[in-house]
Amino acid sequence: MTREDALALDTVDPLAGSREGFILPQGTIYLDGNSLGPPPRAVVPRILEVMDLEWGGDLVRSWTAHEWMDLPERVATKIAPLLGASPEEVVVADSTSVNLFKLLGAALRLRPKRKVLLSEKENFGTDLYVAQGLARLLGEEVSLRVVERSDLVRELDDDVAVLMLTHVDFRTGALHDMGKLTSAAHEKGALVLWDLAHSAGALPLDLSRDMVDLAVGCGYKYLNGGPGAPAFAFVSSRHHEALDSPLWGWMGHEAPFDFDPDYRPAKGTGRLRVGTPPILSLAALECGVEKIVELGVDRLRAKSIGLGELFIELVEQNLGGHGFEIVSPRQPENRGSQVSLRHHDGYAIVQALIAEGVIGDFRAPDILRFGFAPAYLRYVDVFDAVAILGGIMEESTWDSPEFRKRAKVT
Amino acid sequence: MTREDALALDTVDPLAGSREGFILPQGTIYLDGNSLGPPPRAVVPRILEVMDLEWGGDLVRSWTAHEWMDLPERVATKIAPLLGASPEEVVVADSTSVNLFKLLGAALRLRPKRKVLLSEKENFGTDLYVAQGLARLLGEEVSLRVVERSDLVRELDDDVAVLMLTHVDFRTGALHDMGKLTSAAHEKGALVLWDLAHSAGALPLDLSRDMVDLAVGCGYKYLNGGPGAPAFAFVSSRHHEALDSPLWGWMGHEAPFDFDPDYRPAKGTGRLRVGTPPILSLAALECGVEKIVELGVDRLRAKSIGLGELFIELVEQNLGGHGFEIVSPRQPENRGSQVSLRHHDGYAIVQALIAEGVIGDFRAPDILRFGFAPAYLRYVDVFDAVAILGGIMEESTWDSPEFRKRAKVT
Repeated sequence: MTREDALALDTVDPLAGSREGFILPQGTIYLDGNSLGPPPRAVVPRILEVMDLEWGGDLVRSWTAHEWMDLPERVATKIAPLLGASPEEVVVADSTSVNLFKLLGAALRLRPKRKVLLSEKENFGTDLYVAQGLARLLGEEVSLRVVERSDLVRELDDDVAVLMLTHVDFRTGALHDMGKLTSAAHEKGALVLWDLAHSAGALPLDLSRDMVDLAVGCGYKYLNGGPGAPAFAFVSSRHHEALDSPLWGWMGHEAPFDFDPDYRPAKGTGRLRVGTPPILSLAALECGVEKIVELGVDRLRAKSIGLGELFIELVEQNLGGHGFEIVSPRQPENRGSQVSLRHHDGYAIVQALIAEGVIGDFRAPDILRFGFAPAYLRYVDVFDAVAILGGIMEESTWDSPEFRKRAKVT
Repeated sequence: MTREDALALDTVDPLAGSREGFILPQGTIYLDGNSLGPPPRAVVPRILEVMDLEWGGDLVRSWTAHEWMDLPERVATKIAPLLGASPEEVVVADSTSVNLFKLLGAALRLRPKRKVLLSEKENFGTDLYVAQGLARLLGEEVSLRVVERSDLVRELDDDVAVLMLTHVDFRTGALHDMGKLTSAAHEKGALVLWDLAHSAGALPLDLSRDMVDLAVGCGYKYLNGGPGAPAFAFVSSRHHEALDSPLWGWMGHEAPFDFDPDYRPAKGTGRLRVGTPPILSLAALECGVEKIVELGVDRLRAKSIGLGELFIELVEQNLGGHGFEIVSPRQPENRGSQVSLRHHDGYAIVQALIAEGVIGDFRAPDILRFGFAPAYLRYVDVFDAVAILGGIMEESTWDSPEFRKRAKVT
């Protein structure tokens, strides 16, 4: 595999032109779209319009004149097909963490005799913290049970109200079998709640087919909605009638402007809205979502696999003997849109890569994480990234005392 | 009082030039800044910079390179003096509603033997809904007690954990005596939680002097932070040690990037952060807050009183016999930055005003609400608004069948 081979792959890539739709700095190979997607080009004129013409032009009337009030619903409707969901099953609001709180609370009410929230040790921090906070709030009867991944199915018992998992592991990129685990939970009478932070916009999802009950996801990774973009939540229509969120606010009221002293929940997932929707952030997220929908998630997934496979092949071909271990699953169907390597000096190596324009990231204690966001990465970027990594390892730049001092590696 | 008198007041107004700092449409008199403040001019170049140079230029590295991670704290530090608070007592995060949930939950933990949340009937919808949702979540022991304003002090008993009030009534603009009510609550061992939605940026506050325990507030009214801007929360340093939020997320963790499976709360109000901070919205809010700080809240308050007094004087002078009742307190020290009128056909009249470029708003069943945001309103605007209102009443334009049909007045 040579650089020319990589360039040849780009020549025949049906998504080759899509990179032009994003703002990306010159001379950077961006392998961290799994942490923060770059701005779609459309976002700049759109946000200017929202600020100047809508907010500054029609002021408070924009809530109706520019349909700001419907913006959360409009973005949710655009996200729905990426999830294999109906528009009314999706809501855009708050952060992933706050949405987790609402849905875990709702899950306990859908299974009122069950008191256990089940998850795995390797789940992302905030998922576990939200569950711990909720369990603490509700008292000793409710608890979070955290087990090893291999014990999840065994730990599904009659006490489990909800199995809460992140679909793509944030460290290794390992993909859970959503259909199988959902079905295992259902067999034991439990619900499932999937965190789609590293899935939405990166790989096809079919929450409907997989009989998923609840899900949350992030707007700023593969949906490119901007730093701290609003998040989404999914509730299967099977549960809409009984859906009971613990977080009540005026935007989730059936008639917010009646200023009724008593709460009456809006229909379906509408009751998961709480405060006033953040219009600037929602408008940015809409641009990101539109771009991904336009490119098509099946095509994106196919290219993401191509990029990941190329990376693995090149690492094996060129980086043997440098102490790397590939910790992501080798079968692409078991992997999200990232490939992670393990190295005992991972932090220093990631810093050295960044210094040479290759942006990956590090997750403690020893994981180098490389995201392959197919909407704006080229095969030649993957080739060049591995070549630069090879150069760093050959020259041990990452290990020199000067570099370590400069990069604050301890 | 003539138009020339109003123009003369503008000539000597020390804040006369501050209007230039905002984007406002030509030919509009904007009396709804109490619902949504207009964009500060600085917001457009700043957001462009965040999108193009930070997000698009340094991508994920902006969290450190452009100090995005510190942005919530930076904005909180700028809001603090507007509240009479220390920077570490303020946090910027989520919506007002979500912050209310956190602080009501925290209040119950600070007063664990007390089970009543006390508020008044006329409180804003979301405040009551959040409290109802929390009470329902925690079970029958906890309840929201909603009483008439005149009964608040009498209803303060040993069961009350927290007295939750909105400082400025959203319908009438009536101002609670913060110091007196706080002190009455403390005498009975209860905490206070003030909603400062219509106070922050409009009038001087001294939460520290008034011994306030907890407060929340809104970023998009008098702080001009943009539609759905992030909200703030205040917790007196007296309660930091014992502060225990029910909503735990990774940004409130002592070390978010350790990915520790167990939650350890950050110091003080830092533990009230939950999800990833919304950078575009925070950057816009920062511009709005900076503008208000620059203008000075004492000067703003003085002018706001001047505008409100002029409005009342002109309404009394020119609108007698048209069936208006002034429902805001007549003493300016008992009033926020708005004046509200009551009229049985208020909705139609507000629509007729909007059609003539005077933007106020209507709150059911019969309140016409006029906000006097002193940062960008002129005395002559007040004069012209009343003159236009007078014209509408004289000609009964608001009452013609054609108008009512066009404006969808039922």
